Amino acid sequence: MHIHIEHDSDALQLSATRLRERLVAAGIATDGLTVTENGTPTAMASAIAGAEIVFACRKLNIAAAKAAAPALDWVQVVSAGVEALLPTLPADVTLTNASGVHGDKGGEFVLTAALMLNYAIPQFVADQAARQWQPLFGGPIAGKTAVILGVGGIGKAAAAALRSRGVKVIGVTRSGSSDAKLDDSIAIDQIDAVLRQADMLISTLPLTSETEGLIDRKRLESLPKGAGVIVVGRAKVVDYAAMAGLLRAGHLGGAVLDVYPVEPLPETDPLWACPRLIMTPHCSIDDHDGYVERCLDIFVENLRRRIAGEPLTNVVDRTLGY
Amino acid sequence: MHIHIEHDSDALQLSATRLRERLVAAGIATDGLTVTENGTPTAMASAIAGAEIVFACRKLNIAAAKAAAPALDWVQVVSAGVEALLPTLPADVTLTNASGVHGDKGGEFVLTAALMLNYAIPQFVADQAARQWQPLFGGPIAGKTAVILGVGGIGKAAAAALRSRGVKVIGVTRSGSSDAKLDDSIAIDQIDAVLRQADMLISTLPLTSETEGLIDRKRLESLPKGAGVIVVGRAKVVDYAAMAGLLRAGHLGGAVLDVYPVEPLPETDPLWACPRLIMTPHCSIDDHDGYVERCLDIFVENLRRRIAGEPLTNVVDRTLGY
Repeated sequence: MHIHIEHDSDALQLSATRLRERLVAAGIATDGLTVTENGTPTAMASAIAGAEIVFACRKLNIAAAKAAAPALDWVQVVSAGVEALLPTLPADVTLTNASGVHGDKGGEFVLTAALMLNYAIPQFVADQAARQWQPLFGGPIAGKTAVILGVGGIGKAAAAALRSRGVKVIGVTRSGSSDAKLDDSIAIDQIDAVLRQADMLISTLPLTSETEGLIDRKRLESLPKGAGVIVVGRAKVVDYAAMAGLLRAGHLGGAVLDVYPVEPLPETDPLWACPRLIMTPHCSIDDHDGYVERCLDIFVENLRRRIAGEPLTNVVDRTLGY
Repeated sequence: MHIHIEHDSDALQLSATRLRERLVAAGIATDGLTVTENGTPTAMASAIAGAEIVFACRKLNIAAAKAAAPALDWVQVVSAGVEALLPTLPADVTLTNASGVHGDKGGEFVLTAALMLNYAIPQFVADQAARQWQPLFGGPIAGKTAVILGVGGIGKAAAAALRSRGVKVIGVTRSGSSDAKLDDSIAIDQIDAVLRQADMLISTLPLTSETEGLIDRKRLESLPKGAGVIVVGRAKVVDYAAMAGLLRAGHLGGAVLDVYPVEPLPETDPLWACPRLIMTPHCSIDDHDGYVERCLDIFVENLRRRIAGEPLTNVVDRTLGY
């Protein structure tokens, strides 16, 4: 068996030595195992040849990897969102993602953002820039209603964190059902029935053909006056231009975004200067401390399953797109 | 018995009718009770004459009230901090404050501010203004250390909220002991021993001769690099000029303030433009929704005690200043 590791030039690294340590710790035999690694995209072709399995710390052209390694049949990636990978995914390669590793930090960041909206922080940041003293006396967050789009790893952790402060959480899923503890759950085609109750609309959705543009101008307008928006999934689910207009007009009370249609967001993008908007640069749900180790939890378990002939977890459904 | 109500021209109001309703609900006899009210400071003298008790919704010159109402022996106020009232407090008038009514919102706001510091929101707000994309990958707040100065109503609620997210809380009190659930508690003269451990320093302290200037430049410098500061008690406990310098220099990672040496903060104050500082205009621990009713909880209980000859609660110690 040959496992090849593709590194990220940036923060995310996994050494062959560390991978072997984790396999030994999990009781997986490493006799006859080849592990290679490569950190330079242009050198991938020579390093990957012979690999059946790739652990990818960076965004990969999977078709190119398959061309260089004809035996390749499984790629593990370290992101949850995979929309950029699917177009190059060959039919005979299984893709597993890192869904679930963002839970702890992601759920807490959604709580942070929700509390910031409840305490009018986006408004006060705008007032501070204008040197304006304009107190607002609201109450605690308990009793407010949050609608969470997508109840996967992050959505589930967010629901738990919000409910611990007394927030009423309505989860929106494909089927309408969820194994998460929620106050209510509905199917995604019913969202128009709940948007008008949402003090906060939170999107954790991946980008798929079904979710792209889901939260359009009309749906944003249907939120009650003063409502807040939080986006930590993929940006193109929400019409940011419409959202910015509603923030400027004061219909929306505030927004906290961690994700953008293009990243890094170009310096010329008008979003930077939108009032009542607080932006974090796609880092608020990612905890690099131990991040690769948490991805390895998934990968090592899946390797055990592969050897035992059991079905893998975290397999991306290429039709659904996540 | 004659109870006189002084109104605030702003949000805080209590009608004689509502006070009577609360007394009846508490089983307190209202036969022979006189209740007067007044909303114009210049008209106070004529309205208050004959009152033994004043419920003050605004900052009062208590010596002037006593001159107009010689029988006055008890004033209930709707703030927790009373440093502005003590200089005019006659020796024979008991002052009771509203300490304890800020707990729910105050504790949650401190949690909000602590999470904002943990998620580098003050830095990202500065980056957004400069259109700079600079991700920071930190972890959840669990395991961080918060030092809370003052463990009264707000401090206690803050400690509980922070500990619910896994934060280690060290409480600082006059005596070193506290009935709150804390990971550690120390006496205020020992604070230098704990400041260097503080990821977050939170002041809920009132302004007294002992607390004024307590957190000076040297103590702020002793905080670890990247630490955050939260002030929701009285501003003059902390040297804001020194703090702003340390925020600009990058020694402090961020600060969230709700209180200022002069309020409203003058438009020309340099604090407005301090980087890595988020300012809320003295409203973040005050919940006007039901606020006067929660003050009435204290007042009605104290009226019951007065009639029963029992000692009052929330009595301000004029030597300690709170």
